[in-house]
Amino acid sequence: MLRTHTCGELGEKEIGRTVKLCGWVGARRDHGNLIFIDVRDGYGATQVVFDPQSGRDIHKLGESLRPEFVVKIEGKVKKRPEGTANAKIATGLIEVAAERVDILNKSATPPFEIIDDTSVTEESRLRYRYLDLRRPCMQRIFRLRHKVCKLARDYFDERNFVEVETPILTKSTPEGARDYLVPSRVNPGMFYALPQSPQLFKQILMASSFDRYFQIAKCFRDEDLRTDRQPEFTQFDIEMSFVTEEDIFESSEGLMKKLFKEAIGVDLKVPFPRIKYADAMSRFGCDKPDLRFALELVEITEIVEECKFKIFRDVVKNKGKVIAVNATGCGGYSRGQIVELIEFVKGYGAKGLANFKSENGALTSQIGKFFTSGELLAIRAASRAADGDMIFIVADKQKVAYDSMAGLRKLLGKQLNLIDEKEFKFLWVTDFPLFKYNEEEKRWESEHHPFTSVHPDDIKLLERGESLDKIRSRSYDLVINGAEIGSGSIRIHESKLQELIFKTIGIGEEEAAMRFGFLLDAFKYGAPPHGGIAFGLDRLMTLFAGCESIRDVIAFPKTQKAFCPMTNAPSIVDERQLNELGIRIKK
Amino acid sequence: MLRTHTCGELGEKEIGRTVKLCGWVGARRDHGNLIFIDVRDGYGATQVVFDPQSGRDIHKLGESLRPEFVVKIEGKVKKRPEGTANAKIATGLIEVAAERVDILNKSATPPFEIIDDTSVTEESRLRYRYLDLRRPCMQRIFRLRHKVCKLARDYFDERNFVEVETPILTKSTPEGARDYLVPSRVNPGMFYALPQSPQLFKQILMASSFDRYFQIAKCFRDEDLRTDRQPEFTQFDIEMSFVTEEDIFESSEGLMKKLFKEAIGVDLKVPFPRIKYADAMSRFGCDKPDLRFALELVEITEIVEECKFKIFRDVVKNKGKVIAVNATGCGGYSRGQIVELIEFVKGYGAKGLANFKSENGALTSQIGKFFTSGELLAIRAASRAADGDMIFIVADKQKVAYDSMAGLRKLLGKQLNLIDEKEFKFLWVTDFPLFKYNEEEKRWESEHHPFTSVHPDDIKLLERGESLDKIRSRSYDLVINGAEIGSGSIRIHESKLQELIFKTIGIGEEEAAMRFGFLLDAFKYGAPPHGGIAFGLDRLMTLFAGCESIRDVIAFPKTQKAFCPMTNAPSIVDERQLNELGIRIKK
Repeated sequence: MLRTHTCGELGEKEIGRTVKLCGWVGARRDHGNLIFIDVRDGYGATQVVFDPQSGRDIHKLGESLRPEFVVKIEGKVKKRPEGTANAKIATGLIEVAAERVDILNKSATPPFEIIDDTSVTEESRLRYRYLDLRRPCMQRIFRLRHKVCKLARDYFDERNFVEVETPILTKSTPEGARDYLVPSRVNPGMFYALPQSPQLFKQILMASSFDRYFQIAKCFRDEDLRTDRQPEFTQFDIEMSFVTEEDIFESSEGLMKKLFKEAIGVDLKVPFPRIKYADAMSRFGCDKPDLRFALELVEITEIVEECKFKIFRDVVKNKGKVIAVNATGCGGYSRGQIVELIEFVKGYGAKGLANFKSENGALTSQIGKFFTSGELLAIRAASRAADGDMIFIVADKQKVAYDSMAGLRKLLGKQLNLIDEKEFKFLWVTDFPLFKYNEEEKRWESEHHPFTSVHPDDIKLLERGESLDKIRSRSYDLVINGAEIGSGSIRIHESKLQELIFKTIGIGEEEAAMRFGFLLDAFKYGAPPHGGIAFGLDRLMTLFAGCESIRDVIAFPKTQKAFCPMTNAPSIVDERQLNELGIRIKK
Repeated sequence: MLRTHTCGELGEKEIGRTVKLCGWVGARRDHGNLIFIDVRDGYGATQVVFDPQSGRDIHKLGESLRPEFVVKIEGKVKKRPEGTANAKIATGLIEVAAERVDILNKSATPPFEIIDDTSVTEESRLRYRYLDLRRPCMQRIFRLRHKVCKLARDYFDERNFVEVETPILTKSTPEGARDYLVPSRVNPGMFYALPQSPQLFKQILMASSFDRYFQIAKCFRDEDLRTDRQPEFTQFDIEMSFVTEEDIFESSEGLMKKLFKEAIGVDLKVPFPRIKYADAMSRFGCDKPDLRFALELVEITEIVEECKFKIFRDVVKNKGKVIAVNATGCGGYSRGQIVELIEFVKGYGAKGLANFKSENGALTSQIGKFFTSGELLAIRAASRAADGDMIFIVADKQKVAYDSMAGLRKLLGKQLNLIDEKEFKFLWVTDFPLFKYNEEEKRWESEHHPFTSVHPDDIKLLERGESLDKIRSRSYDLVINGAEIGSGSIRIHESKLQELIFKTIGIGEEEAAMRFGFLLDAFKYGAPPHGGIAFGLDRLMTLFAGCESIRDVIAFPKTQKAFCPMTNAPSIVDERQLNELGIRIKK
């Protein structure tokens, strides 16, 4: 190689040696006759000194160097003079006295400086991603991402999992989002779909007698992009045969324990706590609660069902819910603070937010007169309010009540500084409903996907087609600090049950055969019991790197308009190409 | 898990223990009252005995088991009776006496038996891929593929390479084949392209100061499928900065040495021999010679340039080539055998194949009278023919002469049993031409791709636009046993040279900016000198697994019509989906 060392490794033990470094010209300081230049590469930066006493030519070359020039420096490693060492960088004890300089490439003045602490817009960072990626913080992220993938692969390899590549040009998978389609030139009028996940293939692999599969898999969803979604994303994809939930949990916990320890030095306690979906909803109003703080919700529907406050009573009558949260120590909240919270819950569609101040062993409120003292005491007791606390209450349709109170809980958690940003609270959420009702299309659909197995206690309900909303599935999510990081289930492996599920959600035999025929066929020839899970790598990486956006942990991400500002993809293509594919653009 | 052991691991040390196995019902043998069933999983097979003395119910269950039923067997491990051990399988010393049987799933009668030695059609194997993959030979292949990928990743990780995921939804890359296109719903009328390789992105990563990149990358080419191409394939993709060819060779050789040793126990000698493109052509007639046998070609154009044989003389006059090969020991070939070889070279467009028999220290031939004895002796000497040998000669346009003689050399190598199928002969081919002339479009184009750097000795020719066919590039191929397994080059890293290349191959400024603008931009901001290589994993796997077709080493391959007989992809899609994408099918 053109270099003997990287720019991140020279230290005291190399003092006196002649070395060659290659890298980019970074910060520059001129002190009298001496020129100091930081030469930077992906590993670090080394200070290079150009001394006129080393020769006028060298010094002149040093003067000519501009930011981001690519240089090869040959020189002697010296201890930095007393008092000039830089403890902040790994090479801070030494400097290299330049004896020879080759300019390997010049650079125009870059549009922004290559430093961590930059105020440049994300637009510009993505447009000039090659400059953005030179920033030390970005180098760290992608070297860490590499490490995390390596750790995961080592983990699965040690446990006899086999990584199998599933196809990218394939058939629509039923994950609920839109597919990206790829027109086939060889088969005119026909299309491949890019996989939303390897779901069907990993189940096929189980039927193929690979009983421990994993893959770091690219997945594709043509969604209307929310803040933090990408058209293509990466997941750790896992499937196992002859297992129950316990085996999936144990494998997942081992993976997380290893990743958190070796990637960021955090010791996790396993097994992770578990909560059933129904309990998560009643205690936190959502299926991915942040457990770094308490502020649990309390349902007081029964307490207020006969109260004189009409709003509450009507909600109860209409099968809605009345939910309270004890905002510990917020008894002194001003009118202004309370109004803000009322506006906040209205954002979720709630019609209002009642508040009860806890003082002198009782509750006071503007609407206090509508409640008996027994009711007030019951509310106080249920909420476990002490003097100085404030109880907030939403009464509304179940979904609105849960959503708004879950949101309020999170907001209070932040406002009251209850969240330790360095903590990682893991939680398994289990027993999700098998179906959900699609109000728009007036039909039942799968909550997870139609290959999710049924809770054994609820199989009778399914067979009778009764109380579909009550049927639980054998699915589970892994939640960290309120974010869903993994999702999976024990799958169906029997044709009869699978057909019943399809029937229940209105997928006819013909449609089932056309869309999933190969899986149904596979089930006919001896599919084993199996289950699995998938973890979102991009989301995990934001936790490890401490980033806000997954765009920071993807080397070449797209914007919210699914556009790449660096390559300008997607773009217009030749008419000739479209002709070959047998398609045309609709005017 | 439902099992205590896999079906591939029980041996003498487990004798006497009660175990649980899960797997598929395989071969079955009934001996009097005893039923023997092989229970198979991805790891092996274990013999299970159903003895009526263990209980009538168990025996009855055993009787009811049919091929490919999924079962869970509980029973005691016993030593097989004297004389019944099976040395061919790992569990051949023991058997499990069934005490409890659970049928986890039933199976219809499979369309073919799950054994290695099958005569079922490939069509059927692909249609029922989940059954095909259960065959022990297929299990071995995909477990080996996993291992090979793991070994490669370990190798690169140890050497500080960073694996970076490059996008799948991206912009057309210039590899000469057709792109698969993906219509964008969010940006109507625009298309992503699936990458033919991560070429541009890996160069961008070099400009991003990742100086050692690798990726096991999915690539896509919409080609008219030849026997052994796939629409999507996998490559080991490598790029390094601040390097020369030597660094790429050293890294590649280390990788191959490790893979061959640890995957199939073959010791490779490094460094691999090297040959320049021009020498490969003159000695073997092709740029990927199989070095497992000699049979080198000899050019005799100058010897025959004034001979009386008009066909040879005309070829020489028209700047063609006269090429000979000494078919050692073939002096006794019959007329029939020779006619077969003549027909063979005609397949390459050659007009004929002359033959000279070497006997009694001279050459004899039907056309011998057209040559002086001096010419005959010179041909004999150049070909190093001894008595009993046969010299075959093609005289034709250069391409036809080389192609046909390269083909003939291979054919003779096989016919004469000169090839040791267990041997692996590696070869670097270097100094490829930078350009080739496209006869159809009457223009020069890149031989490799337009980012390949120029041989330093030929840069003057390029600048003057002279003798474009003589300009060599800094590209290299790795060839194993006559198959190209890797290809790469030192790249251009300077805008000026890149622009000159584009100009030379007729890509105007505007087109260059539109297609590769981001790479040209990156070059402006300090791109380092860099180079790389990519290896075809699927092709490598056929060598490791001893398969003929890459379809055998890809879990879910497509047919030559780019069709998947299992999923029926590609397929027709809803009009609604096309409407959303803003495209329509051309009638």
